[in-house]
Amino acid sequence: MSSGEVDHFWAVVPAGGAGTRLWPLSRSAAPKFLLDLTGTGRTLLQATVDRLAPYAGSRVLVVTGAQHRLAVTEQLAGLDPARVLAEPSARDSMAAIGLAAALLEREDPDAVMGSFAADHVIEDDDEFGRAVRCAVDTARAGWLVTIGIAPTHPSPAFGYVEVGDRLPGHVGAHAVAQFVEKPSVDVAERYLAGGRHQWNAGMFVARPQVLLDLLAEGHPAFAAALRGIAADPGSLPRIWASLPRIAVDHAVAEPAADSGRVAVVPARFGWEDVGDFDALTDLLADPTSAALTVLGEPARVVARDATGLVVPGGDRVVAVVGLDDVVVVDTPDALLVTTRERAQDVKQVVAALREAGRADLT
Amino acid sequence: MSSGEVDHFWAVVPAGGAGTRLWPLSRSAAPKFLLDLTGTGRTLLQATVDRLAPYAGSRVLVVTGAQHRLAVTEQLAGLDPARVLAEPSARDSMAAIGLAAALLEREDPDAVMGSFAADHVIEDDDEFGRAVRCAVDTARAGWLVTIGIAPTHPSPAFGYVEVGDRLPGHVGAHAVAQFVEKPSVDVAERYLAGGRHQWNAGMFVARPQVLLDLLAEGHPAFAAALRGIAADPGSLPRIWASLPRIAVDHAVAEPAADSGRVAVVPARFGWEDVGDFDALTDLLADPTSAALTVLGEPARVVARDATGLVVPGGDRVVAVVGLDDVVVVDTPDALLVTTRERAQDVKQVVAALREAGRADLT
Repeated sequence: MSSGEVDHFWAVVPAGGAGTRLWPLSRSAAPKFLLDLTGTGRTLLQATVDRLAPYAGSRVLVVTGAQHRLAVTEQLAGLDPARVLAEPSARDSMAAIGLAAALLEREDPDAVMGSFAADHVIEDDDEFGRAVRCAVDTARAGWLVTIGIAPTHPSPAFGYVEVGDRLPGHVGAHAVAQFVEKPSVDVAERYLAGGRHQWNAGMFVARPQVLLDLLAEGHPAFAAALRGIAADPGSLPRIWASLPRIAVDHAVAEPAADSGRVAVVPARFGWEDVGDFDALTDLLADPTSAALTVLGEPARVVARDATGLVVPGGDRVVAVVGLDDVVVVDTPDALLVTTRERAQDVKQVVAALREAGRADLT
Repeated sequence: MSSGEVDHFWAVVPAGGAGTRLWPLSRSAAPKFLLDLTGTGRTLLQATVDRLAPYAGSRVLVVTGAQHRLAVTEQLAGLDPARVLAEPSARDSMAAIGLAAALLEREDPDAVMGSFAADHVIEDDDEFGRAVRCAVDTARAGWLVTIGIAPTHPSPAFGYVEVGDRLPGHVGAHAVAQFVEKPSVDVAERYLAGGRHQWNAGMFVARPQVLLDLLAEGHPAFAAALRGIAADPGSLPRIWASLPRIAVDHAVAEPAADSGRVAVVPARFGWEDVGDFDALTDLLADPTSAALTVLGEPARVVARDATGLVVPGGDRVVAVVGLDDVVVVDTPDALLVTTRERAQDVKQVVAALREAGRADLT
């Protein structure tokens, strides 16, 4: 296996998303990607950049909301602050990734870019590296490439990629038969059994020009606007608000797959988007133990007959007695008590607080 | 019904007890009686003295641990601080009540004293007053009198008093057939059905001399020591540590009942000793609503599909989603999450913290 940096490979890291289902850990001012959710001492954003550095070196672009630019540059002290792009407002993934593509198209004519969300957790760096190298190699030949994750369970929460025939000349890469939106559990079970579907983790690798040209086919004004911003960066604040809110999947990947121009590199690394406290508990739990999982200082937790997750976020001691699959998240100004089963409903609490005029707590 | 103060009636309020099952609300430094557990703005101690003032006027003696004397005098700003007696160490109820008896025996030869724990909640002041007047009247004739509470459910957590024949000449008073220790639930159910048993709430009314003379029958040295302290208050610190640790029930009430010298005034007021968070929830819950009960500021609690009790003790917002009969008690330095069913096990948390060297939190 090859090693070392990958020539002209640029890592693009969209750092957005509210993560309201992880309240009160995540807040408007401190979204998921800025948090150390794994207890490793590195935030999800830092871990994402750490993971890409062996291949991209210093060729990293982060695209984030203007309100988070300072926090991002502080967390990524080794990165040239000019490489942290600020979106004046959230415009979904196509605008964020397309902006990076337009800038790179001018900066490095030989660039191959790969986009990797700032708030996912990945295990098995070697397998991740293999997939990145394979995807870049395939993308150099003009393909839009996605890295598909071998599913470990029939999740109805993710989109899927149906893997087609092998691509001649690109070992490890296949044509994409089609992208599939979040399926029912029944359909997801068939996918898992069939072995032809991978999770769509939103990892897209392509030459910037290929990506923008594909965008231009369905959305010519959008592509032109992005290229216009790259030619005149001062125009960004004026143009940005007019860009469509659309995901890169819908704007580019799905139509391109329909015309046979998308490849997929199936990969087997562990992947978790940590969407809620149920997923976070799974991620952190010791599979050999039924004990309560603690994200933080275990000495701060006293448990009796309790399982689930406790996040002792303040200086307080947290005592939990007689509750299974409980979720207790303690922060200096807000406390959440719920169950793993109801983890998705945490967003209702955030909505209720905003309605009650307590947006300051969200 | 008579009204106004009761001549020579002295209210004695033993203010002790750790209340570890109400941790983290109650602490060594802030035991149950110093807390406002009813959300009325008055602590249990204050409410106890408020309740007795119509009958005792300023004739109130509080007996508390030396470490709580300052807090007690602060909470009872209207009471002469000399009326707050400090025990150098906890010696159970006989020593506390006996000390008050010995002092009153010298101070007021016509005194009738009644002891009422500082940490009970009583509803129906009129019925309470009727029982106190009847008990004092009976005690003046030389009886040791207890006020028995009509049981509302077959609790195995309380002792019972079996009511005997009416006392001639004392309307409302009966002889005590016997005291019974905490029974099984089955036995308690028979008591409830039979209608002859009242809860023993530890309310004893007697002339001080009667109480001490009864004590002297089984524990002559104990009675002599108490009278010695009253004759020479400076000897208290030296003598106190040698006093037996025994409850007034065992030292005096049970043996006196066996020889037919104890009366009981059956009463029907609401009575709750608030032993744990399950009892506190019952006490505070709106019987017409299944909603979550909040002790504190309701605006600080966001609940979805939750029942039980939340005590938002800090400045934090507390969100509870999808838990029935949950107990969440939030304080500045400790948080408890448990269920009503496990409320008794909170004392295990206190024990665990002490074992772990965190007695500062208990």
